[in-house]
Amino acid sequence: MVWFPLTKHPLGEHEIIKLIRRYFEVMPEAVVPFGDDVSAVPVAAGEVAVLKADMLVAKTDVPSGMSLWQAARKAVVMNVSDFAAKGVAPQAVLVSLGLPCGLSRNDLVEIAKGLNSGAREYGAYVVGGDTGEASDLVISVQLFGTSRKEGLMLRSGAEPGDVLAVTGGFGKSASGLKALLSEGLFSVPPDLREGLLNAVYLPNARLQEGLALRDCDAVSASMDSSDGLAWSLHELAALSGVGFIVDTLPVAEEAARFAEANGLDVSELVLYGGEEYELVVTVKPELWGEAVAAVEKVGGNLLRIGKATKQKHIVLEVDGVKRAIEARGYEHFKSQC
Amino acid sequence: MVWFPLTKHPLGEHEIIKLIRRYFEVMPEAVVPFGDDVSAVPVAAGEVAVLKADMLVAKTDVPSGMSLWQAARKAVVMNVSDFAAKGVAPQAVLVSLGLPCGLSRNDLVEIAKGLNSGAREYGAYVVGGDTGEASDLVISVQLFGTSRKEGLMLRSGAEPGDVLAVTGGFGKSASGLKALLSEGLFSVPPDLREGLLNAVYLPNARLQEGLALRDCDAVSASMDSSDGLAWSLHELAALSGVGFIVDTLPVAEEAARFAEANGLDVSELVLYGGEEYELVVTVKPELWGEAVAAVEKVGGNLLRIGKATKQKHIVLEVDGVKRAIEARGYEHFKSQC
Repeated sequence: MVWFPLTKHPLGEHEIIKLIRRYFEVMPEAVVPFGDDVSAVPVAAGEVAVLKADMLVAKTDVPSGMSLWQAARKAVVMNVSDFAAKGVAPQAVLVSLGLPCGLSRNDLVEIAKGLNSGAREYGAYVVGGDTGEASDLVISVQLFGTSRKEGLMLRSGAEPGDVLAVTGGFGKSASGLKALLSEGLFSVPPDLREGLLNAVYLPNARLQEGLALRDCDAVSASMDSSDGLAWSLHELAALSGVGFIVDTLPVAEEAARFAEANGLDVSELVLYGGEEYELVVTVKPELWGEAVAAVEKVGGNLLRIGKATKQKHIVLEVDGVKRAIEARGYEHFKSQC
Repeated sequence: MVWFPLTKHPLGEHEIIKLIRRYFEVMPEAVVPFGDDVSAVPVAAGEVAVLKADMLVAKTDVPSGMSLWQAARKAVVMNVSDFAAKGVAPQAVLVSLGLPCGLSRNDLVEIAKGLNSGAREYGAYVVGGDTGEASDLVISVQLFGTSRKEGLMLRSGAEPGDVLAVTGGFGKSASGLKALLSEGLFSVPPDLREGLLNAVYLPNARLQEGLALRDCDAVSASMDSSDGLAWSLHELAALSGVGFIVDTLPVAEEAARFAEANGLDVSELVLYGGEEYELVVTVKPELWGEAVAAVEKVGGNLLRIGKATKQKHIVLEVDGVKRAIEARGYEHFKSQC
């Protein structure tokens, strides 16, 4: 239930993944390198199967007040977000459930309904799975879809000069989490409360935006922002071999007001909050207009926040003042770890 | 760490799955009905993507003395066994790991190596996954492969008169588990010890047998036996609308000797033990010879144990004595559930 900045842990999630990965022989025909948001395997000429697995553990991924329905739905949505970032529509969802003893029949129904909603909202179906007994509630979700190989929007591919953009404002989830986890410590303007909590309880994946961007072929690199905007920028930069200048912070209005009401640095909420499911993309400058139009056509927004640079620094530059954007974000683990 | 017969639990795994499934909208284009060993989704004309997810939770699925390498390998093998039963070669493995705090760097390496071994032994590769922190060690594995739609050997399809067969003797895992879990209570002939423990620690999936059977097109119904032989017979019978007469119990020699040394009923070990990864199949009688030859060609065995009947009873009939085979097997859950 407690979220810690990942830099504090001696062996954080990203380091564990890096360590483990070394012992996996690499599939020769793999289409997407390890470390991108999804995996992909050729199925036919030019066609790939796209696979994703991400696990929700109630103890660390479910903040207080979130219902089982919401937790189950979120477990699907956080996977769909990765598909969205690659421009792939999910078709099938598999779910492995680790169920604690105390769950009632009604709890199980809530979980089942949440899983179904998470899938159906994005056009997919739950097609199978497995249950077992565990100490924590564990909802392990797997997605399957297909894509043209060339259609996949990978993390690599950004070039200097590309437009850096996001699909929405940031900071709502971080504000909502602060409001939730430190009840009483922060002041929450009453008209903001529901919006901030919904950002945490009812996240949405930007699937329509991702599919629209794929269709207009304007994106050079893409990932979602579930580990925070700063983290996404560092990942995209590292895998593309570029840097970024961010000249416009994508501040969600609600986050600005929450920060103001509490004397917080809003850039901290925007850059280093996690569990925000926007897409972070780079767009070929000559196709910028088309990309914006494509995303707006499906009811979304594409906000320019800066550009990719040859210099490999990741910098926030506002009003002539430069500040490094650090490689940190949110990662969950138990307090006693 | 404790294994209980599934009939004792008020809401066992099978009942939970049945309950949850009711709330999932059914994918119109799904190729395999809910309740079979795998899921399948069309990807091209006549071609399907085959998907499977099964989760290993250390607390309930890992008996004492099993190493982390073995547990991780087993988590993959138990999924491969379901693919084997459908006649599908696994190509890609995804893994979501729930990791308790206490694991060392070396523990993580053991887990990674075990996952890689489990995949590579069967020609697949680990292509992606996710880690998070959990109270129990949770290894959630997903498999992907492709198949001709007609090539899939489903649980339904057995017809009266079909030959009932298995790919090996039964009872070793149940004997090994008894030896492990009740150290001192049972007498284990020294020359049996290693074989019985390996049946538990190092299970093998009958993938080559499954692929050979698919290729000779002789099988009318198939599933694996991970919940026990009796359970598999009841599942195949229910989904095919037939019954079975078993006239030859497939007793593993080691199980016979273990039973004899301990005054146990060997049929109990053979029919109601779990965690045994043989295939249970029905074969069209006119293709029986070809099926046997195909399996022997890949180094396996196909043992005739009885036949499918029009009458929907599941009966053991040896030396003219008939006995009902009950619908029970092994299911894991916590003692305090």
